[in-house]
Amino acid sequence: MTSTIDPGLRWDPTTLQDRYDEVRAYTETLAAPLSPEDQTVQSMPDVSPTKWHRAHVTWFFETFVLADNEAGFAPFQDRYWFLFNSYYEAIGPRYSRVDRGLISRPGAHDVGRYRANVDDRMRDLLATLDDGTLTKLASTIELGFHHEQQHQELLLMDIKHVLSRNPLQPVYAGSPTAASQPDRLGWVEVEGGLVEIGHGADGADAEAVGGDFCFDNELPRHEQWLRPYRIADRLVTNGEWLEFMADGGYRRHEHWLSDGWAKVQTEGWQAPFYWTEVDGTWFEHTLHGTWPVNPGLPVSHVSFYEAEAYAAWAGKRLPTEAEWEHAARSLPVEGNLANGTSWHPEAAGAAVPGGGLRQMFGDCWEWTSSAYHPYPGFRPAAGAIGEYNGKFMSNQMVLKGGCALTPAGHARASYRNFFPHQSRWALSGVRLADDDTSKGSTA
Amino acid sequence: MTSTIDPGLRWDPTTLQDRYDEVRAYTETLAAPLSPEDQTVQSMPDVSPTKWHRAHVTWFFETFVLADNEAGFAPFQDRYWFLFNSYYEAIGPRYSRVDRGLISRPGAHDVGRYRANVDDRMRDLLATLDDGTLTKLASTIELGFHHEQQHQELLLMDIKHVLSRNPLQPVYAGSPTAASQPDRLGWVEVEGGLVEIGHGADGADAEAVGGDFCFDNELPRHEQWLRPYRIADRLVTNGEWLEFMADGGYRRHEHWLSDGWAKVQTEGWQAPFYWTEVDGTWFEHTLHGTWPVNPGLPVSHVSFYEAEAYAAWAGKRLPTEAEWEHAARSLPVEGNLANGTSWHPEAAGAAVPGGGLRQMFGDCWEWTSSAYHPYPGFRPAAGAIGEYNGKFMSNQMVLKGGCALTPAGHARASYRNFFPHQSRWALSGVRLADDDTSKGSTA
Amino acid sequence: MTSTIDPGLRWDPTTLQDRYDEVRAYTETLAAPLSPEDQTVQSMPDVSPTKWHRAHVTWFFETFVLADNEAGFAPFQDRYWFLFNSYYEAIGPRYSRVDRGLISRPGAHDVGRYRANVDDRMRDLLATLDDGTLTKLASTIELGFHHEQQHQELLLMDIKHVLSRNPLQPVYAGSPTAASQPDRLGWVEVEGGLVEIGHGADGADAEAVGGDFCFDNELPRHEQWLRPYRIADRLVTNGEWLEFMADGGYRRHEHWLSDGWAKVQTEGWQAPFYWTEVDGTWFEHTLHGTWPVNPGLPVSHVSFYEAEAYAAWAGKRLPTEAEWEHAARSLPVEGNLANGTSWHPEAAGAAVPGGGLRQMFGDCWEWTSSAYHPYPGFRPAAGAIGEYNGKFMSNQMVLKGGCALTPAGHARASYRNFFPHQSRWALSGVRLADDDTSKGSTA
Amino acid sequence: MTSTIDPGLRWDPTTLQDRYDEVRAYTETLAAPLSPEDQTVQSMPDVSPTKWHRAHVTWFFETFVLADNEAGFAPFQDRYWFLFNSYYEAIGPRYSRVDRGLISRPGAHDVGRYRANVDDRMRDLLATLDDGTLTKLASTIELGFHHEQQHQELLLMDIKHVLSRNPLQPVYAGSPTAASQPDRLGWVEVEGGLVEIGHGADGADAEAVGGDFCFDNELPRHEQWLRPYRIADRLVTNGEWLEFMADGGYRRHEHWLSDGWAKVQTEGWQAPFYWTEVDGTWFEHTLHGTWPVNPGLPVSHVSFYEAEAYAAWAGKRLPTEAEWEHAARSLPVEGNLANGTSWHPEAAGAAVPGGGLRQMFGDCWEWTSSAYHPYPGFRPAAGAIGEYNGKFMSNQMVLKGGCALTPAGHARASYRNFFPHQSRWALSGVRLADDDTSKGSTA
Repeated sequence: MTSTIDPGLRWDPTTLQDRYDEVRAYTETLAAPLSPEDQTVQSMPDVSPTKWHRAHVTWFFETFVLADNEAGFAPFQDRYWFLFNSYYEAIGPRYSRVDRGLISRPGAHDVGRYRANVDDRMRDLLATLDDGTLTKLASTIELGFHHEQQHQELLLMDIKHVLSRNPLQPVYAGSPTAASQPDRLGWVEVEGGLVEIGHGADGADAEAVGGDFCFDNELPRHEQWLRPYRIADRLVTNGEWLEFMADGGYRRHEHWLSDGWAKVQTEGWQAPFYWTEVDGTWFEHTLHGTWPVNPGLPVSHVSFYEAEAYAAWAGKRLPTEAEWEHAARSLPVEGNLANGTSWHPEAAGAAVPGGGLRQMFGDCWEWTSSAYHPYPGFRPAAGAIGEYNGKFMSNQMVLKGGCALTPAGHARASYRNFFPHQSRWALSGVRLADDDTSKGSTA
Repeated sequence: MTSTIDPGLRWDPTTLQDRYDEVRAYTETLAAPLSPEDQTVQSMPDVSPTKWHRAHVTWFFETFVLADNEAGFAPFQDRYWFLFNSYYEAIGPRYSRVDRGLISRPGAHDVGRYRANVDDRMRDLLATLDDGTLTKLASTIELGFHHEQQHQELLLMDIKHVLSRNPLQPVYAGSPTAASQPDRLGWVEVEGGLVEIGHGADGADAEAVGGDFCFDNELPRHEQWLRPYRIADRLVTNGEWLEFMADGGYRRHEHWLSDGWAKVQTEGWQAPFYWTEVDGTWFEHTLHGTWPVNPGLPVSHVSFYEAEAYAAWAGKRLPTEAEWEHAARSLPVEGNLANGTSWHPEAAGAAVPGGGLRQMFGDCWEWTSSAYHPYPGFRPAAGAIGEYNGKFMSNQMVLKGGCALTPAGHARASYRNFFPHQSRWALSGVRLADDDTSKGSTA
Repeated sequence: MTSTIDPGLRWDPTTLQDRYDEVRAYTETLAAPLSPEDQTVQSMPDVSPTKWHRAHVTWFFETFVLADNEAGFAPFQDRYWFLFNSYYEAIGPRYSRVDRGLISRPGAHDVGRYRANVDDRMRDLLATLDDGTLTKLASTIELGFHHEQQHQELLLMDIKHVLSRNPLQPVYAGSPTAASQPDRLGWVEVEGGLVEIGHGADGADAEAVGGDFCFDNELPRHEQWLRPYRIADRLVTNGEWLEFMADGGYRRHEHWLSDGWAKVQTEGWQAPFYWTEVDGTWFEHTLHGTWPVNPGLPVSHVSFYEAEAYAAWAGKRLPTEAEWEHAARSLPVEGNLANGTSWHPEAAGAAVPGGGLRQMFGDCWEWTSSAYHPYPGFRPAAGAIGEYNGKFMSNQMVLKGGCALTPAGHARASYRNFFPHQSRWALSGVRLADDDTSKGSTA
Repeated sequence: MTSTIDPGLRWDPTTLQDRYDEVRAYTETLAAPLSPEDQTVQSMPDVSPTKWHRAHVTWFFETFVLADNEAGFAPFQDRYWFLFNSYYEAIGPRYSRVDRGLISRPGAHDVGRYRANVDDRMRDLLATLDDGTLTKLASTIELGFHHEQQHQELLLMDIKHVLSRNPLQPVYAGSPTAASQPDRLGWVEVEGGLVEIGHGADGADAEAVGGDFCFDNELPRHEQWLRPYRIADRLVTNGEWLEFMADGGYRRHEHWLSDGWAKVQTEGWQAPFYWTEVDGTWFEHTLHGTWPVNPGLPVSHVSFYEAEAYAAWAGKRLPTEAEWEHAARSLPVEGNLANGTSWHPEAAGAAVPGGGLRQMFGDCWEWTSSAYHPYPGFRPAAGAIGEYNGKFMSNQMVLKGGCALTPAGHARASYRNFFPHQSRWALSGVRLADDDTSKGSTA
């Protein structure tokens, strides 16, 4: 972590322990509706079984906190060390990612025992920390909180996919909102010029971008030059997407990037990922079950290629990461994030008087037109933790803002999420942007 | 079924009900050591999850017995009709075979409820059968018994594979036998000439070939001309296989069929399927756990290609189906079949005084050099049941004799098991044969 | 070669040289209509480029005749030794089969120079042979003749496929015959009992089965037991195949083997291999160009699976190899073989008065229901030549009788051709057979 | 084309005709050393056969110039319309790209006739152009010149790959330069700030960036903000690359992006694309034949992943596109471009006194760290020509500067070449860059 913020200052043993308990408990809350069988299945290579997520986040604390700091450390189980390493080459060999669904044992209950064991050992460690060690370890433990929150979101995205493959149309929890229609889309104009993006270097600034913690990929804060632009005040809706489809959106090559058009044909894309047509009506698989598509809700589970094609069809474009982040800078981090009752995007709500932005945080991760590349001056952390983000900086696009499955406290303007262009199983949506040609072009 | 034997004669409502209960209970006995997670995993396309086997054999009775004979029949669950059809095109669309491991629900417990429901309905039906219906249905119900026994064997072969993929080296049940050395291999000489194979057409004959029931593929009984031949008095052992390996068996092309040699190279075959070398010692995964290879036991989990290459290396050949069956004709159907305690082949035991055949039934299915083709005059049954065997008569080789996982009552000399040339996950082994050149050749 | 016939007796240096010149010249005649570009393309893995065939048959003489017998032997070009080895593991490493179309040099003209060089060296060798060496070498040289004839047939089958992939619809040579209608199909009844098949061991017998030479896989001659059967007096026609298609032949699972039905679906089979539908009319790509399907000609380029499905639909079956060979035994080896003007099957011609068999030799290779397995007592030759046939004896079916592309002198009743079940690019067709239930069954 | 430059002003019928003849003739000059067989092969999906390139660039003039402007236009051959369309969806269906090597006809000579026919028709058209039509067409004809030049470069890159697959180690033309050692690498410091990149909007500016013509993807010219940076004064050499390899460059995960490391393992990368190790010495396949790797020459045929890993190993980074272009702005477009005698990168030559940049144009296309995305305000041209560049703007990285195979007149500072991250068959190399931390960071 190259953050110049000292996270040790934000924590004492009590707050660290409380936060640890809180984050860890929420993972179990999310897994509670799922049977041992549900927790075992891997429905495609990108998906991990629920019990694997529960074990891997535990392994993270065992590996990066306990291993070097617990007296007489020994792993809970040698083979777990191998099974639950995700992608850290520096830690040693690991079990094949695509085969995670082949592992029936440890079962869901055994994973619970692993979690309890590491929790006990973490509590013992935290209870005996001196100030120097606290300062040294707080940064890694805090990273472990945010790591576990990332996996809470992934756990939900993944089980959504697992349940979607089942002809019994199972429900994770809850029930859907009432059908509604899209309201009018508005636009917000933004001045360009030399702006700064990336996580802020001091407290006042940090506040503005949504919290004190950041991942290394959000640094360093740096200048970018922006032309004047306009950005939509809400997400694109299912109703608007149905118009795109009705106008041949998935059949007309001229809207698509070449790689995207190839996917349309080889994968047979005709609609967003979880949509199915039955007797002329489109249904959508959600964590609440399978229901008719609701026109007023944001469209979700579309790839970058689809987002880009939709924007081309609409005569607009996607925002760049810098445009999105600059526009979001002064907004409070509020929205439809994971809240324990609804597990799906919601309608935008009433337009803001005077034209402010809606749905910038929560609902759907928003595709930008920016490649996920390092910021100028980026340096990954030393050691295995340096593999956390940096090595993935190719062939992916940045998404901003969080979604309905993002835990509260895990969203901020500078957050850089990333997925490959063709990914659809993440809870991703679309916000349009446009050049502001009413302003004099700067070139 | 084209059998000319009338199975109705062998059954009355009581014996049918008793046998039904017995067969159904044994499936649950076999599944009992397995957790819900164990029962969910599909570790490769050939493997089905335990709970799928438990449900499918139930679906068989629901589909082929209840559907046309139960008053006011409705399937237990419409989607089960779709999920648990294995390969019967005539029954309608079915769920993709390679995706059986993606289905977490119904869970293991739900499948138990499905089984109980069908059992109740079967009992109700059997309790009210008139004689005419009994005669009509007994054949199909009896087929259902043997169908469920086939899946009992497959359930064990499949869970063996599932557990083998797990680095925790799990145990299904039991413990291995003590290490032993191979005894001397003997040979039995058999006269050739015009012999008959296939299941017998009358009671006396049926007795000779191992029971009254047969599948349609064992018919009709017919002549084949055999040259004089010799057949080994026991299976090839692990100890002998180690000699083959030590002599470059997996590295010398000259022993192999071209397709087999291609598999050696593309699959990296270096030993039988479940063997792993650790620091110079070969270990074998079994249902009893992972143990050093025992030289005295029959080699198992080798493909047809390996069996054929071994025979070529040894200067011998595999027996044809007709040679095997003719040699087995007069033997009692006894051997190391599924017995509730050992789930692995055993050593051959002492040579028979005077040179009789050992291990013909049980231990390992024995590869023959015969393609699995229809017997002259074969006609599959009418309707969906006709898909049971006939449509698989290409690209497979016949195996004979049963194995340590075959339920008692499910082995006989005329039984034709079949697998593709490259299959290794079945419990298959090798018995050698040879031309008897001491006799005057007939050509 | 385990033949007990001594081919040395059939040859003296002059006849050997004359036959050598004749066979070699015919290859060049067949290649003459093809441009350098035509001779370079490999349109699928099973196909080899024309210039590769021309070089490989040359390599065969260089490797198996010259290498051990020419004074001061050195290969024409070291890399040719590597490039033009087909599948002989014992000769050393070889160039990848699927990449034969990547090799632009040596070009067609360079291959001509290679051929001329080996021809000169072969002539020098033959001119100086003493009697002992003649006896020793004649067998291998004669094998080289038949080997080159096999590749003459393959050269034509392969270039047919190459040209078929070209939207310009190129013509190899010649023009098609006039449209005709199928005549009436007749049946010939054959007594069964204990018959002999395989190439004969003495001259008189050899004459009966079509010539003195045979490949090792045609030996030994041996007994088989046949039930009484009937065999169709001509091949199935395009007109009859159109009826099969019109009756849903490619859409109804009940006629198909399971593996065949899978191919129908994954490959989208709707008609024979070279047929294309344009505006409701079926056209067929031939070496004479692309023309409307001619109903009176034999159907060709169908796989074993299609042949088997057609027979099932027709309520008949395919003949076994033994049935076919036994029926063909007494017939002269005459028919539509390669003749320099027509490169396609022809209509059967008038029925034989009294009901004799037509089209047994030439027109189309005829699928049998017999797996390509070794005959009882088969032993491959020693050394690299032993790889010629034996190692391919798995996963293939036997075809009999030759086709319109088979060179004269290369067909006989005992000839065993073989292709995988799904192969369609070979010139294969269908003859029906049936049980003769009018005779008392022998079982 | 959104260029605001009017190309009509640069051309009159005579200069247009002269340039047409010149460009067209050079294609034939490049193809002259290649046999018909050489011109037919497609050695991998990215490669096109030489005769396909020769035909496609002809098709371009026929389609985009003649079709709408020639009186009584008809295509030379209907099927050519289909065969030689590369990727223009708007033009209609096209022949499969990966199957271009399956087409033997039209042969190389037939393609020559196609070229001559279109040349005649183009000359007729140009001879009769009125001024208005000239103005209208000059832009498209000029695009055709640059299009053909792109394919001249591709023709050479592609035939290099075709010949590389041949164990005969064929030579395209010429011979290699003498072995040399790398000289000392120097660095040039560049001030950052607000700079402009993209093709210039007026004549004076255009001169500075290398000529009057540009592709649509080089527009619009626009601002970017740069931090102070340093850029290497020459390309990385083979000698330096051997040090990287000796230090475990291809075996140490820590230098690699995750996607790149996966390629190292699945593709077995151990050295640049055309290098082979024989008995401890590295050889390189070139258009001049196969020779020992020359340490003093620039390393070539490395992927983005390798370039990036090398930079990480060296403690440096790749330049961004803007950094590269800004540094190149004031340099003359001179260097080792295609010159008719050497077809390979050359050594950098003596350092520039005072430290100027060397090898910025020619030798190797230089990987940048910038994704190939549209410039702010980019709009593709209307109609089929709009597919020329825009639809490929995903999953690719920008390369700058041209290479030893780039025709003179086809390089400029604003030129944006692009290839996928894993591409190695293009003539790509590496120039290092670094942050200039001696300057005060701006963030």
